[in-house]
Amino acid sequence: MPQLRIALAQVDSTVGDLEGNAQTIIDWTRRAAARGADLVLFPEMMLTGYPVEDLALRASFVDASIAALHRTATRLAGEGLGGIAVVTGYLGRRTGLTPHTGQPASAAQNAAALLRDGQVVVTTAKHHLPNYGVFDEYRYFVPGNRLPVVRLPCGDADADVAIAVCEDLWQDGGPVTVTRQAGAGLLLVPNASPYERGKDAERLELCVSRAAEAGATLAYVNMMGGQDELVFDGDSIIVDKAGTLLARGPQFAEALIVADLDLPNADLGIALGDTPADAKDGTAMTIHRVALPAEPPAAGQAPGTADSEDEPGPVWPRLDPLAEVYAALVTGVRDYVRKNRFGSVILGLSGGIDSALTATIAADAIGSDSVHTVLMPSRYSSGHSVSDAEDLVIRQKLQARIVPIGPMVDAFEAELSLHGLAVENLQARVRGVILMGLSNEHGHLVLTTGNKSEIATGYSTLYGDSAGGFAPVKDVPKTLIWQLARWRNEQAIRQGQTPPIPENSINKPPSAELAPGQLDSDSLPDYADLDAILDDYVVRDMGVAELVAAGHDPALVGRVVTMVDNAEYKRRQYPPGPKITPRNFGRDRRLPITNHWREPDPAQAR
Amino acid sequence: MPQLRIALAQVDSTVGDLEGNAQTIIDWTRRAAARGADLVLFPEMMLTGYPVEDLALRASFVDASIAALHRTATRLAGEGLGGIAVVTGYLGRRTGLTPHTGQPASAAQNAAALLRDGQVVVTTAKHHLPNYGVFDEYRYFVPGNRLPVVRLPCGDADADVAIAVCEDLWQDGGPVTVTRQAGAGLLLVPNASPYERGKDAERLELCVSRAAEAGATLAYVNMMGGQDELVFDGDSIIVDKAGTLLARGPQFAEALIVADLDLPNADLGIALGDTPADAKDGTAMTIHRVALPAEPPAAGQAPGTADSEDEPGPVWPRLDPLAEVYAALVTGVRDYVRKNRFGSVILGLSGGIDSALTATIAADAIGSDSVHTVLMPSRYSSGHSVSDAEDLVIRQKLQARIVPIGPMVDAFEAELSLHGLAVENLQARVRGVILMGLSNEHGHLVLTTGNKSEIATGYSTLYGDSAGGFAPVKDVPKTLIWQLARWRNEQAIRQGQTPPIPENSINKPPSAELAPGQLDSDSLPDYADLDAILDDYVVRDMGVAELVAAGHDPALVGRVVTMVDNAEYKRRQYPPGPKITPRNFGRDRRLPITNHWREPDPAQAR
Repeated sequence: MPQLRIALAQVDSTVGDLEGNAQTIIDWTRRAAARGADLVLFPEMMLTGYPVEDLALRASFVDASIAALHRTATRLAGEGLGGIAVVTGYLGRRTGLTPHTGQPASAAQNAAALLRDGQVVVTTAKHHLPNYGVFDEYRYFVPGNRLPVVRLPCGDADADVAIAVCEDLWQDGGPVTVTRQAGAGLLLVPNASPYERGKDAERLELCVSRAAEAGATLAYVNMMGGQDELVFDGDSIIVDKAGTLLARGPQFAEALIVADLDLPNADLGIALGDTPADAKDGTAMTIHRVALPAEPPAAGQAPGTADSEDEPGPVWPRLDPLAEVYAALVTGVRDYVRKNRFGSVILGLSGGIDSALTATIAADAIGSDSVHTVLMPSRYSSGHSVSDAEDLVIRQKLQARIVPIGPMVDAFEAELSLHGLAVENLQARVRGVILMGLSNEHGHLVLTTGNKSEIATGYSTLYGDSAGGFAPVKDVPKTLIWQLARWRNEQAIRQGQTPPIPENSINKPPSAELAPGQLDSDSLPDYADLDAILDDYVVRDMGVAELVAAGHDPALVGRVVTMVDNAEYKRRQYPPGPKITPRNFGRDRRLPITNHWREPDPAQAR
Repeated sequence: MPQLRIALAQVDSTVGDLEGNAQTIIDWTRRAAARGADLVLFPEMMLTGYPVEDLALRASFVDASIAALHRTATRLAGEGLGGIAVVTGYLGRRTGLTPHTGQPASAAQNAAALLRDGQVVVTTAKHHLPNYGVFDEYRYFVPGNRLPVVRLPCGDADADVAIAVCEDLWQDGGPVTVTRQAGAGLLLVPNASPYERGKDAERLELCVSRAAEAGATLAYVNMMGGQDELVFDGDSIIVDKAGTLLARGPQFAEALIVADLDLPNADLGIALGDTPADAKDGTAMTIHRVALPAEPPAAGQAPGTADSEDEPGPVWPRLDPLAEVYAALVTGVRDYVRKNRFGSVILGLSGGIDSALTATIAADAIGSDSVHTVLMPSRYSSGHSVSDAEDLVIRQKLQARIVPIGPMVDAFEAELSLHGLAVENLQARVRGVILMGLSNEHGHLVLTTGNKSEIATGYSTLYGDSAGGFAPVKDVPKTLIWQLARWRNEQAIRQGQTPPIPENSINKPPSAELAPGQLDSDSLPDYADLDAILDDYVVRDMGVAELVAAGHDPALVGRVVTMVDNAEYKRRQYPPGPKITPRNFGRDRRLPITNHWREPDPAQAR
């Protein structure tokens, strides 16, 4: 029985950094070789990063990706790594394409290749193109219609290994079905599957059921790291066709996951070359069989067990639900800062929970030395506003300065006769100007501190508290903000550290402090009620009748839905932030600004 | 030979306004009936507006659209308009759908229906779903696979009339091919086809060639009006199968285009009901034949010629290229203001050409009484800055006030130690705060005055000059700004009016006036060179090698491409503005912010 040592390289990749990503492939292939792996599997579009968006339409970029793939194969061989099979995603192109209705002119493909001995041995491309939620792959890619099956010598026997890409696992028919028809013993699946809460459980279930369908062991590798509003959580998985979990990678960390797989013998009676297959999805696919020559074990390969001592074994432990969200936010911030080449961030501290949590996430992401804060009290700021913010600064040793906004606000008020909301917004905008000025002067990235409940209801000031380059808690509802703050403090206590967030910031009633004695509860419903409605309206896209049927108070439903509908223009200009829910504001939820549709009066819907 | 009097209702529609749009259908059907029309054709998704974006995913909205369609049929009959065939676009749903790979859960369709005698007689749905440029229809819709052919009594004879939707005309195979197979004499095509420069010529060519392919007269009606960043230009067309232009509607105006069509006799030997057809695009389609009973001419129908006295005939004159762009901008502003229920706008006047042109467009769109301007000189403002702006205000009788920004800038500088670019940005942001404060106080919409060349290169200040709700000249390159200003002045002279824009604003060297003696030419290449490169890089998506091969100076190419690539984060937070080029910043061009891809050094690409 062929035994294959596989390594899943669950790594971070940067969009557009072809050289850097190629180097990552080489470095991690070397690590896999040192662990004695026969094969190393990298994520979907590893070489280009994911998603590349409209770069896929630019011919020069597609060309550069293909050239980088071939250069990587050559370099691997040149560095003595030619003997290990390397499977990686890249941006490819369908050649010999007959122009076809509505296909992108670039004929780009979401492709994967197997490299060995300095050669690109086979290529394939994603067959099912996701075009929902955050995905727009019909815009960019031509679908693949070929399943490569590589006959890989494993000691004295041969194993047949197939390759499919990401969405091909999520849809019925196509590559999974054809894998069974081809009789392959192992299906390799490179992925770039963005995090959202609860997706890890769904993913494992999916892998188990598709492994059974394919009749093969399934190795699923996922990207790790942040890319604009997406965070990839890793969580790579290997299951056999009986559903046994053989390996599982960590969440939100790079890792090399190594496992020894017992695979069925390849049927050597089946000839190499192309044969047609029935994809069972209405399309024609081809099975493309190639065989690799045996390789002598390379020098420097370590014999023995697959697991090195400093790793927790092939199945990493899971994070609890709040730890998982927190790790997503930290990863999103760290990668946005690092990949956009900022050395530091700046944010305003109000003494409230949103800015306190944002500062804590930032400090955990890039270190408290690099987190600059500004306290900007106004005539309406409470005493505890400054003292709670100072407490936070001291607990975390953040950089801090105080800039009272009174003189600037006065200068505007002397020229303009403003009242009510205009005065409230003025204060928020003066703070925005201060942060942006310090950002321009010192090169800090401005972090925006608004939460999802605020952004949903428009309870924010355009160019005021919404100013900034990245919004760490943009997709976090207010009730979850509190949970995360408490969780982070408990975490610190468990580790014998000072809780980073002042209890008073967590426990006091939330207020924007833009008018005397103002509280959020003057303008917004109770946050528990609000977040429950928002989850059903924004994430689940329920109409008013459904919301009322789901048990929400009709009057409250009407009020919340109106607030959400009226705030679309503000969201359009909001900075990006990490997606953690099944539907974030941004790529996931795209509504017109000019929009007269208003759900019918909930009183009538009851 | 059957003679059919057709009316194309080239009208404006508002996204989400089901009641208002239904009323428009009824009002214009009444007008068509008064002109003796047998049939009136409305645009694509007339009933819901277009594009509805993620509203198409909300089941409650799809239900509401379908209910509104049936209600409209009933109301038409109730108002004595049951005898005229009404063809309109709406948001439908495919029923009895077997769930299918990657299709939207809402099973929504971009549908069209024929209403008569109070009934929805037939429905159909777009077969080819555009998913490129500004279109995302794979995200929203399930494709249609049925061509309805309606046998329409015209006097003593019958004509067979088919219906296809928008993109079905642009792609090979599908409904056009099936129309020929069905032997229909007339193909009706409702459209919502956004304006871009030069598209009208392309559209006419397309109609001519598809009419020949279909072997039928082709009636193409297009929506008119603005929706966020799209502007629909009307320009409806009727051509016969020989390519003769029978009618053409105006650009950027609502109109009822009436024509008498001589159609071939329907072959009464062909049975009604469904028959399979070969769509020649790899899909199976069905021809769905129904017959309508003859109607007695309704009371109040005017006999006689199709053209009323106040209309220029069935073929409206064309606008010249600059008039066309200017009309697009005015339409975009007027509809954004009106549909978002603003009564007035406000903008800053610098004395420069961008703000002068923006104010002029706004005054032409909503009247100078509703255009509020603010002159905000700084210590670096030239004397002509204020005098040129005052000249503009006087010429157009705009509302104006002067707010020198010195005291506010000083108040910030007293607290923050800012230098260089940070000081320049501060001035722009103080102006942004002033405009937003006056907007909040008085309810004006803030217009942003940046042009496409600035936005491309990042030559603007986030939350400063980029602040605002709508950006009228966002997609207009600087060289075109000057052309439009000169054209508008000449237009006034031709009409015996005062040229609205001061010559000095047009002729002086452009400057941001944020530092002593500053000129745009200190930071940017000559605008003629810059715009030529931007057109090739941004609109045509050329890589560096192609740009150099196209004759652009390699050093300049490198400089411009770097500026464009580095400014993505600013564009992401820019307000929407009307698209007038084949690729605007916004829906049309979607690049990641985090992006390490940089085109290779043009010196090497030469």
